[in-house]
Amino acid sequence: MRMVDIIAKKRDGGELTTEEIQFLVDGYTDGTIPDYQMSAWAMAVLFRGMTARETADLTLAMAGSGEQLDLSSLEGIKVDKHSTGGVGDKTTLVVAPLVAAAGIPVAKMSGRGLGYSGGTIDKLESFRGFQVERTREQFLQQVRDIGVSVIGQSGNLTPADKKLYALRDVTATVEAVPLIASSIMSKKIAAGADAILLDVKVGKGAFMKNLEEAETLAKAMVAIGSQVGRKTVAVISDMNQPLGFAVGNALEVKEAVETLAGRGPKDLTELVLSIGSRMLVLGGLVSNVEEGRGKLEELMASGKAVDKLAEMVEAQGGDKADVYDLSRLPQANIIHEFVAKQDGYVEAIDAEAVGHASVVLGAGRLTKEMPIDLAVGFVLHKKRGDQVRAGETLVTIHANDEKLLQSALEELEDAYTISTEIPAAQPLIYKIVEA
Amino acid sequence: MRMVDIIAKKRDGGELTTEEIQFLVDGYTDGTIPDYQMSAWAMAVLFRGMTARETADLTLAMAGSGEQLDLSSLEGIKVDKHSTGGVGDKTTLVVAPLVAAAGIPVAKMSGRGLGYSGGTIDKLESFRGFQVERTREQFLQQVRDIGVSVIGQSGNLTPADKKLYALRDVTATVEAVPLIASSIMSKKIAAGADAILLDVKVGKGAFMKNLEEAETLAKAMVAIGSQVGRKTVAVISDMNQPLGFAVGNALEVKEAVETLAGRGPKDLTELVLSIGSRMLVLGGLVSNVEEGRGKLEELMASGKAVDKLAEMVEAQGGDKADVYDLSRLPQANIIHEFVAKQDGYVEAIDAEAVGHASVVLGAGRLTKEMPIDLAVGFVLHKKRGDQVRAGETLVTIHANDEKLLQSALEELEDAYTISTEIPAAQPLIYKIVEA
Repeated sequence: MRMVDIIAKKRDGGELTTEEIQFLVDGYTDGTIPDYQMSAWAMAVLFRGMTARETADLTLAMAGSGEQLDLSSLEGIKVDKHSTGGVGDKTTLVVAPLVAAAGIPVAKMSGRGLGYSGGTIDKLESFRGFQVERTREQFLQQVRDIGVSVIGQSGNLTPADKKLYALRDVTATVEAVPLIASSIMSKKIAAGADAILLDVKVGKGAFMKNLEEAETLAKAMVAIGSQVGRKTVAVISDMNQPLGFAVGNALEVKEAVETLAGRGPKDLTELVLSIGSRMLVLGGLVSNVEEGRGKLEELMASGKAVDKLAEMVEAQGGDKADVYDLSRLPQANIIHEFVAKQDGYVEAIDAEAVGHASVVLGAGRLTKEMPIDLAVGFVLHKKRGDQVRAGETLVTIHANDEKLLQSALEELEDAYTISTEIPAAQPLIYKIVEA
Repeated sequence: MRMVDIIAKKRDGGELTTEEIQFLVDGYTDGTIPDYQMSAWAMAVLFRGMTARETADLTLAMAGSGEQLDLSSLEGIKVDKHSTGGVGDKTTLVVAPLVAAAGIPVAKMSGRGLGYSGGTIDKLESFRGFQVERTREQFLQQVRDIGVSVIGQSGNLTPADKKLYALRDVTATVEAVPLIASSIMSKKIAAGADAILLDVKVGKGAFMKNLEEAETLAKAMVAIGSQVGRKTVAVISDMNQPLGFAVGNALEVKEAVETLAGRGPKDLTELVLSIGSRMLVLGGLVSNVEEGRGKLEELMASGKAVDKLAEMVEAQGGDKADVYDLSRLPQANIIHEFVAKQDGYVEAIDAEAVGHASVVLGAGRLTKEMPIDLAVGFVLHKKRGDQVRAGETLVTIHANDEKLLQSALEELEDAYTISTEIPAAQPLIYKIVEA
């Protein structure tokens, strides 16, 4: 088998065999297939696409290219959750303890953030002492003990995907849907998921800019799930404006705790219930989404959901008192109100601009090496459709540096569009894609 | 400027600017742009194409990527000739001395062969003592003295093209027409051509398998010529069957000399006159093709064309007596007649199969390092349309090794298709493409 023939076959619109895809992934992982052949192949895939069967084969080959997490010692159906990423997306912080409180074992590896804001792992470090690096045994034991653990990615999981992802980034082949889909799914499978709930973001602040693209990606991933025997459901949700009110690490943790307690923003709460209830269905704990919602709302109201987070914080070296007294989380020194210049209605909040402003403020990083300031960020007071008066606060800015604050303010200037007319309502959840 | 943005622009169907193409060629030549970005770009070009302007810019950038041959010290319009390659293609061996005899200065660099048979340079070495490596000064002085010199490629001409060509070969991007066209044209321009005559081969034994593809390539190259101010004409000629009768180095040299003397095979003679006369027009020696043909036929008949070859052989260290006594050229030990098994008409001679058989026999090389046996090869007695009787010789095989002869015979078996019906005539020259 020769890689050049495999490239030519895909270039000419052919369907690669399982053996050809395995050859390609093995060769790329062990270095016998060089980057320059892989990038040409990726570009051919971008133009020609891949069938569901090919995409599933690629996913499994990448999942098997390195270590795989064995969660079989944990009882029950392990349901993993993945978001394609967005501004103010603290869903995992809420969903993980929430579904764990309901009885779904959550053994979750999560990433640090690149781009708009910190990742789940960064955010969790807002709890002083919280350990994100754990041995495999500690990790699994914690899930056996309290039902939930969220740690940083460790071990040599999906090395083929890591290499290919980095290559796609510099060869303008990121956009190939089968490659995006198999990249995400291979990581979930290698991390031991039995079932997968995908939150596919769409809008100005997301990678997928329109519903059609988002749906194509969602369908590709759900199809992979069907092919490889992992029940997969995708929720396509809005990322035109930031999710919830808080953007920034400790600020998002606070909002996550409020949401776990049933006092969260309407959109975040709705998304958490939608995602969480479907995870309960996937995990076989309830027979339908309505039942799942009821169970989750009850756990929020009873305080059991917050307690589960507190247990996790404590188990991973943090102080559970932080969960019950949010003033103990990192606090910024400068509080600045960004106010409306005119009366009207919020027509749009450019999530991308807000995300960019948060990076400027220090809440996110652009390179792996950049430090993150956990305390800084924004709390939005007005969201799309809200009425505002000139002088009213749109955003409270939490900053630690006057200069960075000014730069962030400049970025924020264009983020809000105020109109004299009430804008049409925009859904939070556009579509549920299931097999 | 970032290469990833240039790749993305081409991927999305955009037209690259002159500056972007220069950046890309410069960066690839000096190694700051890695192979993996170049191959992704090449694949995007394969799908999206390039405009005439982009292709011309790429050609000039590649021509300027290394040394360029300065032929300005030679008087007259320097007309170069290039063939896309085929089996039994000894056209340059005839055309170079022929047009030189007519007064066109021929300072030609030529290649060694890879694939079906030796290149022009390999073939010329059939003249014992013939030197293909000359200094620039020797080379130019010889053209000033006798009007013609054909030497091997030397110096660091078009390094960008060399690198890209090698990369395309292993990334299934050879087929991109703008890349083929600019590769050929950049080499001709770097080699100092004022005007260019292209022989684009089409058929089973050529890279271009059908007329449409061949015409697309021819038009692309003629368009480049127009854009960069080098008058260019392309002759699209048949390569379904081998050209002439001889396949193999010394055998082809003999046939070339016979053709220079006006006693060559009909198809080769016709092609030489068509190409040569157009070179005379391009060189401004005659005002039309008919006038050019007359002049060339006269040079053949008078013996002046053969004399010009003899002068060149002598000037480059060979013995001119070889030109006048062809029995002095390398001779094979084994002469074997490959005969027809049935009566009928030759419907087809698979040029690719004949070329393959010649490699098996030792007349060609598959890797740069393989030695070539100059004496071995085939002399075809029957060409397409000829009547044959069972037992009549189709091909005389010249071999030096009984085993290789048997292997070559096996390859030849399927090359001839004999039919009971007279096949329809097939043109030698399909089309002339001019600006």
